[in-house]
Amino acid sequence: MKLSSKNIETRLDTVYDAIVVGGGMGGLSAAIYLARYGLTCLVVEKGKGRSLWMQDLRNYVGLDPDTPGRDILNHGTKQAIEWGADHLRGYVEEVTDEGDTLAVRVKVGKKDSTYPVFRSKYLIAASGVIDKLPQLENMQNVYDYAGYTLHVCMICDGFDMWDQKAVLIANTEGQIGAAFVLNWFTPYISVLTHGLCEVSDETKQKLADHGYPLYEAPIAKIHGENHKMSGIELTDGTMVEATTGLISMGSIYHNQYLKGIEGLEWNGENLVTNDMMKTSHDRIFALGDLKQGINQVSIAVADGTLAATQIWRNIRRASEPRKWEENLEKVNVAV
Amino acid sequence: MKLSSKNIETRLDTVYDAIVVGGGMGGLSAAIYLARYGLTCLVVEKGKGRSLWMQDLRNYVGLDPDTPGRDILNHGTKQAIEWGADHLRGYVEEVTDEGDTLAVRVKVGKKDSTYPVFRSKYLIAASGVIDKLPQLENMQNVYDYAGYTLHVCMICDGFDMWDQKAVLIANTEGQIGAAFVLNWFTPYISVLTHGLCEVSDETKQKLADHGYPLYEAPIAKIHGENHKMSGIELTDGTMVEATTGLISMGSIYHNQYLKGIEGLEWNGENLVTNDMMKTSHDRIFALGDLKQGINQVSIAVADGTLAATQIWRNIRRASEPRKWEENLEKVNVAV
Repeated sequence: MKLSSKNIETRLDTVYDAIVVGGGMGGLSAAIYLARYGLTCLVVEKGKGRSLWMQDLRNYVGLDPDTPGRDILNHGTKQAIEWGADHLRGYVEEVTDEGDTLAVRVKVGKKDSTYPVFRSKYLIAASGVIDKLPQLENMQNVYDYAGYTLHVCMICDGFDMWDQKAVLIANTEGQIGAAFVLNWFTPYISVLTHGLCEVSDETKQKLADHGYPLYEAPIAKIHGENHKMSGIELTDGTMVEATTGLISMGSIYHNQYLKGIEGLEWNGENLVTNDMMKTSHDRIFALGDLKQGINQVSIAVADGTLAATQIWRNIRRASEPRKWEENLEKVNVAV
Repeated sequence: MKLSSKNIETRLDTVYDAIVVGGGMGGLSAAIYLARYGLTCLVVEKGKGRSLWMQDLRNYVGLDPDTPGRDILNHGTKQAIEWGADHLRGYVEEVTDEGDTLAVRVKVGKKDSTYPVFRSKYLIAASGVIDKLPQLENMQNVYDYAGYTLHVCMICDGFDMWDQKAVLIANTEGQIGAAFVLNWFTPYISVLTHGLCEVSDETKQKLADHGYPLYEAPIAKIHGENHKMSGIELTDGTMVEATTGLISMGSIYHNQYLKGIEGLEWNGENLVTNDMMKTSHDRIFALGDLKQGINQVSIAVADGTLAATQIWRNIRRASEPRKWEENLEKVNVAV
């Protein structure tokens, strides 16, 4: 059922089998599996996740390569609700470990916000990341190209940059290292730091050895039309010619709501999980971009399958087996 | 490119980056990723795999729940070929480890078969399983229900059996144990052995304790119409009423072609892999139902992503980095 401020109250006494934080591809996969295991679940989706920004999903079996992320998210949300999941638009602010249950406080509504608390036996953290973007005065200029010809994922879109003149926009010396992977797809790489980091002599030398020019002035404007880049103008007046690019500036993690939970093992901002996506906390699972590993839709979707399956196993094994009562006397045992 | 006996010769001198044995969901995912990494690959598909039998795919994010397996396979095959993969209809008979390459002998064509040998640096074993079905004199009677109301996967279809009268068709005492998981979805379970195994007193007692009748006579005929079961008639004349069922008879693995490879670690018929789907052989990967773990489309698709990514990493790291030659003198290094 789709929840909103109008019908939230009907669920405040519910103890869900699982609450899924994040209604992206991984969270929706978890919800679809949970619902089809006959378990109750609530998906809380804040909106504006990484997959919503995808203009096309080129490497997911079964979908047309020009399918936008938005369409798949809408489709999967409908699918999850139809199988019986609850779905709420809201922002998870805090999770509290109450022993037998987890309490999940959600901010609902941007104006006149309410802060309902939902409870569940298990929590699936599927709230993912969003990509850091270069901050320009006119952010619309960035949005006009990001996800089209200015990419954020080399695995997803490296192929579409093949042998083109490309910018690599990096905000740390470590991120500049992406140039030496991106050169698999194209060697015509200009590195831009947008004035965000110092570059060591060693890295400068390595870039020069590869013929990749380095520009350290901030970006003024992305040039092009109809989402197709033609170049990037820097504040010092330089024009860097490029028809494509990769933003390699790291991610912003939506995981603050878990920072108060004791006993969770982190690796940086990623949660450490086992092969069924269980974290070091027995009732908290993590998947997709929030766990360690490769950030890909196909992997998040499988993670959702695994987390939901393990939660089903746990709940099933803790339940009384269902007997065929009316047969109990009839069945003839010749022991 | 679609290969056939007419154009195979053009590829006999090729050393592919990878050959993918099996064009099911996992193999196609691997091929799409390999192609988009700019690697050369050949998918060899024998046909009639498990996903071809699926009448609907209810739990894969982004696809309508009534999408038949056949449609997704056709769509994914087209997708892989469009990104640059080669695809051949044939049966892999043997793989030989030649040191730097693997030689893959394929039987092509049912009549006047030819036996071309293809070579690759890496092999992805994605040839999966098919489900064992009860053998009746009239197999069409089985095919009329299998995949519709007579299921082969509890995780996929347990939900659709909810509280219905169900048969569990098991061929070993171990498989009978599935009754005590299936009862999560329905307690109205009749167990049929089709005369294929002895049942111990202990198991008989456990079934009786749950009220699940056991029928040991062979199946004569599945009753129903329009793919909807109404019951199963046994050779002793008994009619077992049921509107759904689960066939729990294990799987036939297509993995014979790997049995001659030294150093491959097996767990029964499954290949043991690491978290990037690499087997104990550095150039052989295994995924989907062929590796250990849960048999689900979503998982096979992610496995394909992982295997292809690791192969790309290996090949990329072994390659000379591409430099922007014309810049090599121009780039000004202020070191």
